[in-house]
Amino acid sequence: MKKKILIVGGVAGGASAAARLRRLSEEDEIIMFERGPHVSFSNCALPYHLSGLIDEADRLVLMSPEKFLVQYNIQARVNNEVLSINKEEKYALIKNLLTGETYKENYDKLVLSPGAKPIVPNIPGIEEVNVFTIRNVVDIDKLNKYIKSMDAKDIVVIGGGYVGVEAAENLREADYNVTLIEGTDQILRPFDYDMVQILHKELYDHGIDLIVGDKVEKFEKDTVVLGSGKKVNAKVVVMAIGVSPETALAKEAALDIGETGAIKVDQNYRTNDENIYAVGDAIEVYNSLTHSVQKLSLAGPAQKQARSVADHMNGKKGINKGYIGSSAIKVFDYNGASTGLNEALINVLNMKIQYDVVRVILTDKVGIMPNSSPVHLKLLFEVPTGKILGAQAIGKGDVTKRIDVIATAIKFGGTLEDLKDLELCYAPPFSTAKDVVNYAGYVGSNLLNGDFKQVNVDLVRGLVEHNSHIIDVRERGEFASGHIKNAVNIPLSELRQRINEIPKDKPVYLHCRTGQRSYNATLALQNLGFSKVYNITGSFLALSFYEYFNDKTKNRESIVTEYNFR
Amino acid sequence: MKKKILIVGGVAGGASAAARLRRLSEEDEIIMFERGPHVSFSNCALPYHLSGLIDEADRLVLMSPEKFLVQYNIQARVNNEVLSINKEEKYALIKNLLTGETYKENYDKLVLSPGAKPIVPNIPGIEEVNVFTIRNVVDIDKLNKYIKSMDAKDIVVIGGGYVGVEAAENLREADYNVTLIEGTDQILRPFDYDMVQILHKELYDHGIDLIVGDKVEKFEKDTVVLGSGKKVNAKVVVMAIGVSPETALAKEAALDIGETGAIKVDQNYRTNDENIYAVGDAIEVYNSLTHSVQKLSLAGPAQKQARSVADHMNGKKGINKGYIGSSAIKVFDYNGASTGLNEALINVLNMKIQYDVVRVILTDKVGIMPNSSPVHLKLLFEVPTGKILGAQAIGKGDVTKRIDVIATAIKFGGTLEDLKDLELCYAPPFSTAKDVVNYAGYVGSNLLNGDFKQVNVDLVRGLVEHNSHIIDVRERGEFASGHIKNAVNIPLSELRQRINEIPKDKPVYLHCRTGQRSYNATLALQNLGFSKVYNITGSFLALSFYEYFNDKTKNRESIVTEYNFR
Repeated sequence: MKKKILIVGGVAGGASAAARLRRLSEEDEIIMFERGPHVSFSNCALPYHLSGLIDEADRLVLMSPEKFLVQYNIQARVNNEVLSINKEEKYALIKNLLTGETYKENYDKLVLSPGAKPIVPNIPGIEEVNVFTIRNVVDIDKLNKYIKSMDAKDIVVIGGGYVGVEAAENLREADYNVTLIEGTDQILRPFDYDMVQILHKELYDHGIDLIVGDKVEKFEKDTVVLGSGKKVNAKVVVMAIGVSPETALAKEAALDIGETGAIKVDQNYRTNDENIYAVGDAIEVYNSLTHSVQKLSLAGPAQKQARSVADHMNGKKGINKGYIGSSAIKVFDYNGASTGLNEALINVLNMKIQYDVVRVILTDKVGIMPNSSPVHLKLLFEVPTGKILGAQAIGKGDVTKRIDVIATAIKFGGTLEDLKDLELCYAPPFSTAKDVVNYAGYVGSNLLNGDFKQVNVDLVRGLVEHNSHIIDVRERGEFASGHIKNAVNIPLSELRQRINEIPKDKPVYLHCRTGQRSYNATLALQNLGFSKVYNITGSFLALSFYEYFNDKTKNRESIVTEYNFR
Repeated sequence: MKKKILIVGGVAGGASAAARLRRLSEEDEIIMFERGPHVSFSNCALPYHLSGLIDEADRLVLMSPEKFLVQYNIQARVNNEVLSINKEEKYALIKNLLTGETYKENYDKLVLSPGAKPIVPNIPGIEEVNVFTIRNVVDIDKLNKYIKSMDAKDIVVIGGGYVGVEAAENLREADYNVTLIEGTDQILRPFDYDMVQILHKELYDHGIDLIVGDKVEKFEKDTVVLGSGKKVNAKVVVMAIGVSPETALAKEAALDIGETGAIKVDQNYRTNDENIYAVGDAIEVYNSLTHSVQKLSLAGPAQKQARSVADHMNGKKGINKGYIGSSAIKVFDYNGASTGLNEALINVLNMKIQYDVVRVILTDKVGIMPNSSPVHLKLLFEVPTGKILGAQAIGKGDVTKRIDVIATAIKFGGTLEDLKDLELCYAPPFSTAKDVVNYAGYVGSNLLNGDFKQVNVDLVRGLVEHNSHIIDVRERGEFASGHIKNAVNIPLSELRQRINEIPKDKPVYLHCRTGQRSYNATLALQNLGFSKVYNITGSFLALSFYEYFNDKTKNRESIVTEYNFR
């Protein structure tokens, strides 16, 4: 039976729904409305126009209304805003923004894919600065043209989420003076505080003035004034503190809004009206790890939801397994990726879950290959089941690969034992014979079995301040080039001969560069009758990152004599 | 209870076993014997010394006997060959190859990790050429020094397995005239014939004279004579036709040898003698997909087996889940990776398994990002269960990531539905919102559900020769720059208007560049009442690769007017 389907919003969710709907039926009438002048643009690639990596703004637009018509027989009405929905009489009221004319369009089924809009808080003096937001091609084109036209170079980006960091990076690549201001103590919440320090440092190293833990209090003429009293010049302010789901239309049509403030949908992405579906950034989804609903502004899930909606409308049943949330970001020379739960989220949600953490560092490829570099991997697992809960990886090499593998394992309810057993592709240019993912499985499994104990890098400052017994098992030359204050150097190669120098009656904390040699030393000591031995997970390399930015921003005395980021 | 453990072989398996054994016990006496002068070198990285990517041969050696002693209290006796094992009296007879002296060493447990040796067949005239093999650091150093010292540039590599191809690539990078000779019709058996053509072409494009389907008949003075009569100059011959497990010691000790010719072990990698274990290239393992034993010369499995053996000796139980085999290779600008079953293997083993194949091509990252390039993915799944059986990916971008994800899914018994549902990390520099792995899940699922039908690129020549109705749905400009002979061009954008030009009563075969537009066209035609529509999977891009090298080697007339490898 021929259906008439209206789609509100023509980007990730809307365009995907339209294309899938057409593939399932040639006869349905499909009309897609987009308020802006473009449908189907690459949302996530917008910031890359600022650096010129994507040279023309037009290239961000992937499909034209003309192509939608001739290739898919889909009407894509740009510059047409849906003003309201009458769900009893099943029609939408639409305004043609070019002609000003309003008109009705009836429907059998309707899909809401309006997305989310950048939040612009009403900070005092906001009229004194040039505020830009980044949501679509028009926005990025406008921002780019404005900054190219001005003589000044000072730009402030407010908000350290994905959009803020990517905007800051790309503006810096275009040689602007960029200040990135984040109100909380860290950027990029998908990463835990201990992990994200690597990215904090990377921004800093590339000349971005990163300010964390300081909020914007007010604006003065071309100036951002912070809570600390600090003033920052800002010819342009990019506001990227977050997005808010576009729910006006849904609310006006009396559709249910969930507890998160986003549109509430059922397992088939249907609203409380049986003929209206909703997808993308405007809805809340079920997280299968937290067992609660959340907003999820990711393009992959939006496309999946769109497809499910098209299938459901056409009588094809699917199963909604919920979401775990996987994402990635490039920050200059570093790559970061994460999936599932992190420690901060577990704490924020006050989840009643017992977990432990593995932190390992291993080269992304065989160490002797050119450009091999460390992958920092943090893995959370449930105690006592060993079930994988989440992971974060940061490094210059291929970190998305490792997180994709772990995300896949999580989807199957995988455990540490499963990670040990994975057969991943190995050749020297791509990985190591035992990949960092396998390695994390081994370490986690040892931890879960009680084979050794560990403390994380974030506790090392406390150990130093309490004069704990820290043993550095790196070789003498490595120790000489920088070490933790008051640490004792007993290289692994001298450990067994100098065993009498190590106290048996009090805790000792071992570390090396990445934690592998100290792990061997930890087990050796345990096997020799030492019962209070702890491996410092992350070891000197992770500690160096952790302390570096902390020292800079907190103006405190360093606990390591020198940093070594090799 | 203190044990004395002997390990025969000091590379991947042996060294891993030794290190793990030490971590589990400080008191055990561990002695590792290695016939050659080095333990613990990077086997897989050997070929990269030939190009100078790894500059000094010494860098291939990862651990010295001295380090084993001081860091792990492990005796690593290089230049010591184990001559025989007396399993009743539990001792080994060893020869010190430097002094010529032989001595006994008794043991409680013994681990065999002797590896596999390159096969050098007794081809007539073999004394007329300089034959080299690549097994260890001494071999590669000798080969490298020899070729650097000679004036001539002509090198022949015999055998298109991983070692042969990597040797050929690295020799070519060092500017030698390289001929690679493979007796069967393709290199690299982990890839199916249709997929491997991309790598055939890549070798060819980089100036390697690749000869497939021709065997070495004899050697004459600095010359290789092929079965076809062709003669190739060869100042150096690198013999890389395969390896044979080192079983002499095991046979002499009357240990069971399996049907594959490798050492037979139980689920704990124990031979038929309860005190003797064996790991690595010398053993046969259980393949959990073919449900049969096989040889598996991979470093990752060897390390895993070594760890299992150490655990088992120390009373730690593990579960042997068998192997699926995952591997990867770089071939100049292309990367290739594979896991699980491929079509050739299913045929060779005459497996009673119903399967179907997905072939998809999607960019590795967002198409508008610089350096985005197609990933060619072939996925095998079981019919009617949809269970994933294996996959191969080739492209210039990150293909190991995609195969690692699929390998992980296979380990969990994953299906096409699972691939659709995976949440993989997305950001424009790393992937697309719907990754090629998800996409393969969607296409496979449609295929399994009977939503459309396909034919593979390898059947297109037959279609052309039988004057089948092939429709090219690319746009006119694309068609003009090269197309399949006699194909009709009906661009997707004109499809619905020109529907009357398409016959309803006979099969029509659709393609575009990668198969996505033609998939849309296929569904549109079906929905319009055409029942005999086939999508050509792989489409014009895959066909171009497929036909290119075939045409060159088989001297036949091309079925496409021009190649377009964009």
